[in-house]
Amino acid sequence: LNHSTVEFETVALVGVGLLGGSLGLALRKRRLARRVIALARRPETARRALEIGAADEGGSDIPGGVGGADLVVLCTPVLTMPALVEQIAPRLKPGALVTDVGSTKAVLVRELPPRLRPENLYVGGHPMAGSEKTGVEAASADLFVGARYLLTPTPDTPVAAVERLERWIAGLGARPVRLQPEAHDRAVAGISHLPHVVAAALATAVASEPGAGGPDLATLRELIAGGFRSTTRIAASSPEMWRDICLTNQAAVLEALGEFERELARFRGALEAEDGNALLEAFQQARRARVELVAD
Amino acid sequence: LNHSTVEFETVALVGVGLLGGSLGLALRKRRLARRVIALARRPETARRALEIGAADEGGSDIPGGVGGADLVVLCTPVLTMPALVEQIAPRLKPGALVTDVGSTKAVLVRELPPRLRPENLYVGGHPMAGSEKTGVEAASADLFVGARYLLTPTPDTPVAAVERLERWIAGLGARPVRLQPEAHDRAVAGISHLPHVVAAALATAVASEPGAGGPDLATLRELIAGGFRSTTRIAASSPEMWRDICLTNQAAVLEALGEFERELARFRGALEAEDGNALLEAFQQARRARVELVAD
Repeated sequence: LNHSTVEFETVALVGVGLLGGSLGLALRKRRLARRVIALARRPETARRALEIGAADEGGSDIPGGVGGADLVVLCTPVLTMPALVEQIAPRLKPGALVTDVGSTKAVLVRELPPRLRPENLYVGGHPMAGSEKTGVEAASADLFVGARYLLTPTPDTPVAAVERLERWIAGLGARPVRLQPEAHDRAVAGISHLPHVVAAALATAVASEPGAGGPDLATLRELIAGGFRSTTRIAASSPEMWRDICLTNQAAVLEALGEFERELARFRGALEAEDGNALLEAFQQARRARVELVAD
Repeated sequence: LNHSTVEFETVALVGVGLLGGSLGLALRKRRLARRVIALARRPETARRALEIGAADEGGSDIPGGVGGADLVVLCTPVLTMPALVEQIAPRLKPGALVTDVGSTKAVLVRELPPRLRPENLYVGGHPMAGSEKTGVEAASADLFVGARYLLTPTPDTPVAAVERLERWIAGLGARPVRLQPEAHDRAVAGISHLPHVVAAALATAVASEPGAGGPDLATLRELIAGGFRSTTRIAASSPEMWRDICLTNQAAVLEALGEFERELARFRGALEAEDGNALLEAFQQARRARVELVAD
């Protein structure tokens, strides 16, 4: 791997939370850009990105900041992106590429290109890396190492732009994967969006569960072990980000949720009927599914 | 901590899977017993326990093997325990203590003592340590270090027996906690049993989800990242063990499940209505709940 290949001389990161901050750190550590610009609505956020070394310069004037960029990476919640692109479109350098790190793609592939001038191009991106931690303080230069980084070009996207982004992604240590926007959204609805909803519902349910005569919160906290810890880890993720993801992938998330509800109803039915064989079968199928899906 | 205190000279482990095997390794590493006996229905299992150093002797004659033990620890699925105690009761040494590592306690506290002779005593135990891995191969001498180890004595249990077990538990590096059997079962229904059911339903739902035009299993496997991995980790746990846990804690698990279903319905409602504020609030509450319950 040649870390000194510079695909994009100047990279502007719009939004420098966990993902934007990690991109900045990675770009600078691996010398993948000559200049990294951190742009954020709040000046303190851009300042913190500079302080931790995630950018060479930065500020809160987003349209003013993108003018020199060869690559603009949107790292804000998905639903903020259309308005953001409208704001920056007139200031973009001809030939500058726009991409993003959002977790849903069909909406963006539909909404963003019409807001750009013909001399700019959008290619949807989604690094499958993250953390329940939020904010630039949690950023890491190695967040993307070994991760899949999904790209969702359309039939209209010039192959050269996709290949350029793929080389840039490889430079980050990630593994580029091409997917159609709709296939992307359906796939991540099950393996990522549904688990976030489930983990969130579980955390709230357990915290609110103790009824009359039940254990108090202090006892629960004292007793909690690894199972609850890992099952609900992602319930601490950014609420704004996950609201936007759910809203922009509504149909696929509802479909995945329906499948989950059916499975849960099967457990409830077996448990109500005290049907040991049905319970055993359900747990056995789950174990096979987990082993099939995840190589640990 | 004085690791050479021997509370029980001879300890018999009935069942040497993950927990029994780990107990054996810990007892021998920390010199907490003069003799550890591994007993298992299948001779190969006892043999493997001996091979990995989890016991000094072992075999498949369970009633014959417990005769010399000062402490008998039942490490088999909960529902096997009543019959097991019936088998071993006539062979127990007078004064020998019986405990277990099962995840539900009220049923055992009710069912086991009447099967023992008056010169023996049962105290329910539940080490809050485990792994999705199963079998003696996954055993570890340090599994209990730092873990809560719950004891569920009843008003009839002599304090001396409880205190003796507590010293033994401290010797393992774990932290003994006393709870009433019913309070125990309600607490673990939410923080442990419900998460197992949820993780299992999620694993099965995602593996079976791809419908017409959806992503195939190979694509999902390729894309799966940390979120799904941690949320479903415990779905790989022992199906037999979890069947028994659900069956012996039915009412509390159903109650916890009901709370979870209500929370899930709230997400569904907000998502169907595309109600961004309701979704944001639900994710925010979940994040607060997670932070409140788990100090990471």
